[in-house]
Order: sequence, then C-alpha cells, then structure tokens
Amino acid sequence: MTGTTVFRAAERSDLAAIVRMLADDPLGARRERYELPLPPAYQAAFDAIAPDPNNELIVAESGEGGVIGVMQITFIPYLTYQGGWRALVEGVRIDASARSLGLGRRMLEWAIQRARERGCHVVQLTTDKARPDALRFYESLGFAATHEGMKLHLQD
Amino acid sequence: MTGTTVFRAAERSDLAAIVRMLADDPLGARRERYELPLPPAYQAAFDAIAPDPNNELIVAESGEGGVIGVMQITFIPYLTYQGGWRALVEGVRIDASARSLGLGRRMLEWAIQRARERGCHVVQLTTDKARPDALRFYESLGFAATHEGMKLHLQD
Repeated sequence: MTGTTVFRAAERSDLAAIVRMLADDPLGARRERYELPLPPAYQAAFDAIAPDPNNELIVAESGEGGVIGVMQITFIPYLTYQGGWRALVEGVRIDASARSLGLGRRMLEWAIQRARERGCHVVQLTTDKARPDALRFYESLGFAATHEGMKLHLQD
Repeated sequence: MTGTTVFRAAERSDLAAIVRMLADDPLGARRERYELPLPPAYQAAFDAIAPDPNNELIVAESGEGGVIGVMQITFIPYLTYQGGWRALVEGVRIDASARSLGLGRRMLEWAIQRARERGCHVVQLTTDKARPDALRFYESLGFAATHEGMKLHLQD
C-alpha cells in the first residue's frame, strides 16, 4: 500500500467515506452521525470548504482506490510576523485499516510541504490533551507545544 | 472612554496604528517591523484579509478616534461536529494606553457574539505559554485549555 497512496483534494463522492472515518474514533463517536444518506449538514460543510481557495480538504487514497485518511488545511493571512501566512491543520484521521503503517506521518509531511508551497511561515494545530499519543506523534514531526489550545463551546 | 469605544472592521488607514500595537509587545518587538512607510508585506497581508468573507480584522476605536485594540477572527467550515463552523481568534492586542480598563474583555465578548451570529459552535484560540496572564484572562471568559497548541516554524 505504501508506495501507491495518493494525497488529493476530496471530492463529493468521498464524503461518506470521510464521515465514516470521523465517526470511527473514541472522541468522534460522540459527536458525529454516520448514516446514509448523510445528514445534509455534512454536504453543506463540503460545499463551503471545497470552493474556498484557503481551505483544502485532503484525502489519502490507497492503491486499491479506498479513502484511508483525511485532513483539512486552512491557509490564513495575518498581519503578525510582518504579514505572514499560516497553515492550520485540523480533522486529521486515519482509517482503522491503515493505522500504524506510517500513513499519518506521510500525510502530515505532505501538509507541511503544501504549507511551504503556499508560502506559510508556520504550520499549527491543536491536539486534545486526552490524546497523548497524538502529542508525541506531532512532536516527532517537529511541532512544539508552546501554546495552550483553548476552546469555548457555544450553546444556543 | 469605556462608553464610546466602537468595534469595527479595520480600514487601510488603520494599518499603521495596528502595526504599531503589534510591535509594542515583548514578543511582538522581536518579530514585527514598525516603520513608516510600512513594509509592503503588511499592505499585502491586509489586501489578502480584507476582501475575504471568512476573515475579519477588527479594531477597537476610542471615543477620541484612535485605534486602541485589534484582533483577527477567522471563520472556518469543517466536516467535524456534523459540519460545524468554528471561529479562530488570533493577534489580539490592546494599546498600552488602554490596558487594564476591561477593553480586552469587551473585545473578546464582541468576538464571541460575532461567532454566534456566524453560526459557529466553537471559538478557539491559542495563547503562548509564556503569557500566563493571558491564559487566566481567557479562562475567565469561559475558554478551557483542553488542547495543546502546537507550532512548527518553517525555514526556507
């Protein structure tokens, strides 16, 4: 599998496979809803992401044609750092069938390379403190946990 | 001053005042370049931010007409959380003349309200672990430091 995995922009026809991956995760199981047809909110989100040049939803496709990984990269222009662009990586998931094979590493390396191509000076992400393995994984890629990642959940 | 401060989208004519604030900060002093005319990179960043409907560069204007605060809010559509939008707040700065008067709190409350208007389910930000006062400030607004904020600086 390793040699033939391709990273590419997600298409609408990938959406069910992506949502299945997002739901197949201890944290994701509590907050996603994987059923067919997909809840319309996923389609609406895809329609907001896909045409935006500053958002790239990337899937890893195996040699057999299945979607086995996903991540979203957002490119953000800032005034800080003398007008520097940053790449924000979120929603990184690897299919259960493809874990521990180095795919996550290759996917993040791809994201870092893409950030360079887009002229970003920083790649940033937040990782849940409930996922200590993920923290070590990102540290092994060169990320430093210099910041607190703070969230405020809004209720209606 | 308190009663008359206005929060509004930044205009090009605010740029010098904004960059002056960004540079007037222990961390910012090392990475910004405030000189007139402004380095063109700041103008280019403004030109990328201002027309993007998913980026809002907000300034606080005092009753006397001066720019005394700035922040950037980025609205990001995600597939996760059943296709939920998030608001990312970055680059929060208050002018030295206006600190300790509650302006930062009102500015963040404004950002949270704006995130609600845009239908976001989460407001998120990262804060440097070297700024413990900022951590406590965000906690007092309801933010929880559930995540590690990881950065990878890219060199050419």
